Order: sequence, then C-alpha cells, then structure tokens
Amino acid sequence: MSQAQGNSTARRIAIIGGGLIGRAWALVFARAGCEVKLWDPDPTVRARVIDQLLETCQRSGDDPSAVARVTVCADMATTVDQVEWVQENGPENLGIKREIYAELDRTAALETILASSSSALVASSFAAGLAGRARILVAHPVNPPHVIPVVELCPGPDTAPDVMDRAEELMHAVAQVPVRLSREIDGFVLNRLQAVVLAEAMRLIEQGIVTPQGLDDTIRHGLGRRWVLLGPMATINLNAPGGVKDYLHRYGPTMARLSDSAARGEAFTEAAAEILAANLPVPELVQELSLQRDARLGELSRFLHNNK
Amino acid sequence: MSQAQGNSTARRIAIIGGGLIGRAWALVFARAGCEVKLWDPDPTVRARVIDQLLETCQRSGDDPSAVARVTVCADMATTVDQVEWVQENGPENLGIKREIYAELDRTAALETILASSSSALVASSFAAGLAGRARILVAHPVNPPHVIPVVELCPGPDTAPDVMDRAEELMHAVAQVPVRLSREIDGFVLNRLQAVVLAEAMRLIEQGIVTPQGLDDTIRHGLGRRWVLLGPMATINLNAPGGVKDYLHRYGPTMARLSDSAARGEAFTEAAAEILAANLPVPELVQELSLQRDARLGELSRFLHNNK
Repeated sequence: MSQAQGNSTARRIAIIGGGLIGRAWALVFARAGCEVKLWDPDPTVRARVIDQLLETCQRSGDDPSAVARVTVCADMATTVDQVEWVQENGPENLGIKREIYAELDRTAALETILASSSSALVASSFAAGLAGRARILVAHPVNPPHVIPVVELCPGPDTAPDVMDRAEELMHAVAQVPVRLSREIDGFVLNRLQAVVLAEAMRLIEQGIVTPQGLDDTIRHGLGRRWVLLGPMATINLNAPGGVKDYLHRYGPTMARLSDSAARGEAFTEAAAEILAANLPVPELVQELSLQRDARLGELSRFLHNNK
Repeated sequence: MSQAQGNSTARRIAIIGGGLIGRAWALVFARAGCEVKLWDPDPTVRARVIDQLLETCQRSGDDPSAVARVTVCADMATTVDQVEWVQENGPENLGIKREIYAELDRTAALETILASSSSALVASSFAAGLAGRARILVAHPVNPPHVIPVVELCPGPDTAPDVMDRAEELMHAVAQVPVRLSREIDGFVLNRLQAVVLAEAMRLIEQGIVTPQGLDDTIRHGLGRRWVLLGPMATINLNAPGGVKDYLHRYGPTMARLSDSAARGEAFTEAAAEILAANLPVPELVQELSLQRDARLGELSRFLHNNK
C-alpha cells in the first residue's frame, strides 16, 4: 500500500521548529510514512522549509517523494491538532522552553506526547507544574537525526511509564534507535560520554603528547572502528577469552588507574582551544564540511544497515 | 613489479611471537610486499603459524598469496638477521620483556629498529640501560592490526627522533595509520580515552540509568558514527557555525561541568561487572563473535577506505 499524503492510516506527527534539527526530524518521520505537520514561529523559515527538505533529500539520498507528506502550518494549534507526537525543537533557553510547553500543554490533546529535542535541559525544568507533565519527555537526537539514528529518551520524574513505552515504540517504527534512560541525569548519556573524551583529549593536546590529528586518528582508525560496530561494552566483552568479567579482572585495575589520572573540567582551556583552532579546518569551511559529513554519515548508515 | 618472496628490493621485517597479534602483524607487513620472518619460542606455535595465516586471509578477504612472503624461523638470531624492523609481541610481563630486549639488542644489527606491541609497558621500563635503547620504541597496535590500522608510536626518553621518523614512514608504507606521541605516558593515548569512557559507562550502568545495550547503542548508533568518520576533535569543529572555538565558547562550560561529575576508577566495581556479564554474550561465544567482529572490521575498513 502506498503511503501517500492523506493516507488515513498514517501516523500523525507535529514538528515545532523548522531549523536544522526540526527539518531532519520531519524527514525521519515522513520517510517512514508518517503525515508530518511543521510549524516555526518565523514566517521566513516556514516559507523555505519544503525547498530545504528537498535539497536535504538530494544530498542524503532519501526519496524526495517523502517531502509530500510534510505540511507547513501557519500556527501551533493547527500543527498539534490530532497528532500522536509533538517533536519540539525550540532554543535551549529555559524561559522560552517553559512558554512553549505551557502553550503546547494547553493546546494539544491529552493523549498527544510532547517530546523535546533538548540536549541541555531536562524535562522537569520545563514540565514542572504543568497539568500534562506525565506526557512530556526529552527525545534527544544527534544532529542530524536523518543520518544518525540514536535518540535518547529521558523521562522527567513525572513522565508516565506508558508514555516512555509509546515513545520507544514510535522511534523503532520510524527506524531510529531509542535509548531509554531510567531517570533524569545532567547531559543524559551521550554527552556525558563525549565530555570525558573531550576533557582527556584536550589535555593530551595541550600537553603536546599528541596532535589534534593524531588524537582524531586514534579514534577514527582505532577505537572508533570497534565502537561503531559493537559499542564499548560489547567491545570489552570480546577483549578477553573469558568475556567481560575476565577483561575486568585482567585490565580493570589498569583502566581504573588511567581514569583516576584523567583530565576533568580544567582541561577546557583557552590554550587548548587555540591549538585546536590552529590545526582544524577554518570556520569558513564548516558549512561545506558539515554537508559532506552528513552525506558520508548517510553512506555509513546504509553500510552498517547492510552489514549487521 | 610482483612482490614475490625473495624479491631483493622488498623490505625485511621480523616478527617475534606467533600469537594473534604477531600473526596479524605478519599479515600487515606481508600483504604490503615486505619479506617477513617470524619466530615464536614455542615450536607448536611455530608449526601452525602458516596454516593460521591462511585461515585469517580467508576470513579477512586478504589475498592468501601474501602468506608466501612469511618464513617461520627456528631461532631469534636468524629471525632478526638483516631486517630493518623487529615487531615484538611477547607477554606483558616486565621481567620477560627485559630479557627479550636484552637479547634482541645483543643480536640485531644496530640499524635495526626494535618495536614492541606492548599496551601496558612503556619503552623506558624495558629499554633502560641497553646500549641500543635509542632504537627501541613502542608501536602499539589495536587488536587485530590487519583490520584496525591505527598504531601508536610511543618513544622512550632515549628513543632517537630519526628512529621515530623511520617508524612513521614504515607504518605509512604498510598502510597502517601511525599516531606519533611526543613522549611516554601511562596508557598511551588510546587506552586513556578508552578508560574514561569505560569508567563513566560502568557507573551509568551500575546506577541503572541505562542498560548495557543502551550504552552501546548510544555510541554505535550515535557518537561513534561521527567519531569513526572524523574523530572527536574534527567532530566538535563542525558542531558550531564558527568552528571549534565557537563550540568551546558555547558548550565548553557544559562539557567541563559534565566531566567534573564523571566517574573515575571507583566505577570499576564487581556489581557493574555482574550486570555487564548478565547482559552480554556468554564467554562460550567470545571466540566465534571475535571472528565475526574481525570480518566486519575488514568490511568497515574497505568501506572507509573507499568513502574518504
């Protein structure tokens, strides 16, 4: 059965915000056959969303016919009407987030789930006190979600377990990879892991032990190869003949010693930033390199999908 | 020109140790056209090396004719005679390492470089006091090096700069990716980065914030996707419109706060190990899954090579 626009059995999704993340989400849902309504407070953003989505499809290799399932709406109320899920992509500003959620909670039907793409704010910070706080969670993607499938699902203290179940089901249904957290934690999981790597990396670079390129090569052509296939835990499970307990018995004390001497927040110095800036592509290239990265991420995603 | 065995222009390499790492190194050098001599103190190991190399080629998709360039020798002196490079893969035991290097330093011609695959011992610990300590370094691979190209080149305090230059040149010549460290550091770079990720991961898992699979998915289907294409530094350079300094201005304080609250050595607990063991494949599957991993690493390596 074709999943044409107006298909009465299609799942209905609302996207709040038409920037990079909002548009990538629109594509994730639309290419999976959902009917997507999108709204942005800025009319100039709204006016160009469809063209930008078509450009994104061209670069990512997605079928542009999916964009026919995206409708740009003129106001928030129409956007969230009769949808099962709202993916909100507003700025990471607590005051603005609270205003948005107060309005979403007033406007959207009670069974509609309200999910935030926030990477920095936890759900309790903007959902506290709202009548519908049980249907509010964070669904944190990695930019851009149409080529990176992981989505961290982080409940607030009041988020209902069945809302988390529905969130997980929907993410699977649209071919993303949900990671369900049991409770709120600063940075969720992904950025906590990124933070410790960045801290240690910046210190090694500032101390001149390794160049920025050497640091990147260590991950790109080393650890990252295993991690992108297996993840760090499945990796260590295969690094000792007796599995993970054998690994931790043999190497745990070394790993503990190394992490005890690892860098922390003090490593984020201006001096390290200067070395990085002097050794990485200049800011003028960021936009073009980001498009190249996304195209390669799309290729990698297809490769990994076909080589499970 | 074909790189047949006995080719007088081929570079000559000695491999000490015929275990997993030694054999993978033999394949790295042989498939690049080097003439490889291999010795292991155990005659039963020596007897099966060639068959095992042929099996490895079958699994990794390497051309088995490369194995014709590997000669198994009956003693160390013959092995290291007239080679430019010795790759030593002995046990990670300081006493044994010291004995091996004392003998290698006595036996090998002065212009021969002596490189250790050690992941835990720094060069100064086994080279100190030897006449030839200037030609001794660590060349730490990731297991197995025939499908993971990074090699950390870590000098001791007495290693000569031109030895490091020659090491770097050789690794490029055999299609590995050398990462040159400026001086000795506990754990080198790769395991320092692995250690901080493992520590934080184990605490998040022990606290029940995320399951082992969720932790692995966060890297496999999230951060790892970018890292395997770009590395962590080039990644953050593209995560703000103004490049890495803009990124660190915007997100540095958050990353510093997260790394300040990260787990350290205390996270390597028995309780975390138990959760991991209960949720990861059982030890009986480790060998088979390792072979599958290596086959997939070979595919990934070819994919990344063709999609630069």
